[in-house]
Amino acid sequence: MSRVYNFSAGPAAIPDAVLERVRSDIPDWNGTGMSVMEVSHRSPEFVALAEQSVQDLRELLDIPDDYSVLFPQGGATLQFAMVPLNLAAEGQVVDYVQTGSWSKKAIAEASRYCKVNIVADSGDRNFTYIPEQTRWQRSSDAAYLHYCANETIAGVEFPFIPAAGDVPLVSDMSSTLLSRPLDVSKFGVIYAGAQKNIGPAGITLVIVRKDLLGRARSTTPSLLDYAVYDESGSMSNTPPCFSWYVAGLVFEHLKSEGGLAKMAQRNRHKAAKLYAAIDASDFYSNPVLEECRSWMNVPFVLREASLDAVFLEQAEQAGLANLKGHRSVGGMRASIYNAMPEAGIDALIEFMREFERTRG
Amino acid sequence: MSRVYNFSAGPAAIPDAVLERVRSDIPDWNGTGMSVMEVSHRSPEFVALAEQSVQDLRELLDIPDDYSVLFPQGGATLQFAMVPLNLAAEGQVVDYVQTGSWSKKAIAEASRYCKVNIVADSGDRNFTYIPEQTRWQRSSDAAYLHYCANETIAGVEFPFIPAAGDVPLVSDMSSTLLSRPLDVSKFGVIYAGAQKNIGPAGITLVIVRKDLLGRARSTTPSLLDYAVYDESGSMSNTPPCFSWYVAGLVFEHLKSEGGLAKMAQRNRHKAAKLYAAIDASDFYSNPVLEECRSWMNVPFVLREASLDAVFLEQAEQAGLANLKGHRSVGGMRASIYNAMPEAGIDALIEFMREFERTRG
Repeated sequence: MSRVYNFSAGPAAIPDAVLERVRSDIPDWNGTGMSVMEVSHRSPEFVALAEQSVQDLRELLDIPDDYSVLFPQGGATLQFAMVPLNLAAEGQVVDYVQTGSWSKKAIAEASRYCKVNIVADSGDRNFTYIPEQTRWQRSSDAAYLHYCANETIAGVEFPFIPAAGDVPLVSDMSSTLLSRPLDVSKFGVIYAGAQKNIGPAGITLVIVRKDLLGRARSTTPSLLDYAVYDESGSMSNTPPCFSWYVAGLVFEHLKSEGGLAKMAQRNRHKAAKLYAAIDASDFYSNPVLEECRSWMNVPFVLREASLDAVFLEQAEQAGLANLKGHRSVGGMRASIYNAMPEAGIDALIEFMREFERTRG
Repeated sequence: MSRVYNFSAGPAAIPDAVLERVRSDIPDWNGTGMSVMEVSHRSPEFVALAEQSVQDLRELLDIPDDYSVLFPQGGATLQFAMVPLNLAAEGQVVDYVQTGSWSKKAIAEASRYCKVNIVADSGDRNFTYIPEQTRWQRSSDAAYLHYCANETIAGVEFPFIPAAGDVPLVSDMSSTLLSRPLDVSKFGVIYAGAQKNIGPAGITLVIVRKDLLGRARSTTPSLLDYAVYDESGSMSNTPPCFSWYVAGLVFEHLKSEGGLAKMAQRNRHKAAKLYAAIDASDFYSNPVLEECRSWMNVPFVLREASLDAVFLEQAEQAGLANLKGHRSVGGMRASIYNAMPEAGIDALIEFMREFERTRG
């Protein structure tokens, strides 16, 4: 089969150019006579790769010097524990915004170590909007303020960066980081699992303001302590070398494509096109408040849910893969991260129109 | 450059046949129209891959039904924390055998959660032997007994499986698992980082007796709880799909090569050949007690350490890579895991003889 347009929420599509490079680097990477999977992480070649990847990421996101870039394992889910274990004392209050499945999971894990105060909850309207910050009920003594910038399931994202004042702002950006420029200086900690816009699952990206390092609880496992990664260049133990390598290739690719301003332009355009097609139809609909609609994950339902199965089947046949929505919202979801070309959006829209014409 | 013989202790060589398969699976794995890096871990294709890998591993190691096979992240180093957090109550005594760098690291991490009793320590002779079990000073009430089956740095391995009685026996088998058959029923927990005999770094293998599940301390982070992996088929969050896939290919490859009995035969033969060459020479030497010599990691020193640099340089030129020994023991180390063919041993021996003849 030839390549399909992969609308998976994650693990998600990786740019073709990156895959081609991965392929051609096997079995001899960089003239070493080994694949990158077989190279010691202490070798000069791998250390150079790691350093270059950090430098490229710093450039892409314009990361200030007082921030460290760390590459732990365990995905965003392990960050749900690492954030409180690194930033909050036992029993301390922490503030969380609840805007969907992922923030709920973060809250559940944090509740095991801290007293979680939910400052706002958009569950009253099925997570289809972001609560206005003026109505948030923040604690006076929170160790940090946490939010999930983009919820992949309902397809809702923050149209603003919350104003946190002196409290460290922490964000799960798994499904939005690298989709556009970001003012990193507003944050205490930004974290992201790789498998959306960064690379293959198995590596996590953490950007942490340096003054927040070294505060982990004494019982925090060493590999859950941000400072351990900071002090060792994320190599206190063997890192997930292959995933790191692919992430590095993705960073290099994004730079060569014009950086995050260019990505923002493309992603805004791609999302606008798809939402416009949905809104122009009586057959498809998306319930998310317009200004909170995700650029990355576009859920939509068919007027008749009984047509879902045949829609998905025909879409697969047309080379449009993984459009099934999450079971909690039903219908469809098109995840359109950086690696989804505009041609994929066009193909999807064309398919949707044709399906509506013949079945609607 | 063509492929070299890679003697790295880890990340280490991967079989050529597996690399060829990885290469040919990009960018279209299994007729999905995607690479395996881009496939959802919830897809039927990936779930089938995961299940097959577990089944193949069970077959290779003849794992009894009352054991679970788990694939967490974080390598053996995270297991240094997960073992005590899952098996021991706060402040409980745990027994450890100290036979080298890796068991020392395991002890240091366990000491943060438990009272560690060192039952025996071979540091008195620079970790060149395994203390006889009759002399071990075990506690009467230990939660478990831990040992590192093969120490990669000194190249020393246990020539026996300790008799633990009713106490769960826990072993770090990172650098020896899959090198030969193993009686899994003797163990409570076996764990291994992937990057020696299993696959690329970034995935960890844990084999745990089921009655030991569900005992984690209440404050253990969810992703450090064995039961969470057991209940979810190691998919409570996105697993490191690519590393898992390669591990599965390695298991399949080992089966096709005749399984672990065949591996044992080859590995014994390879190691014997190399040790014989070292012992037959006055120029090279290995200090490890004969019956405790590792099949996987063969350290040796040159009579004149001043020749180390030129030895390494010429070895690299001859396509023999990563022979430098760990700084704590100096000299050379040839790591000869499953993926090292006998031809690599022959090439090394030939190079060593020629070097001795011209420089010795």
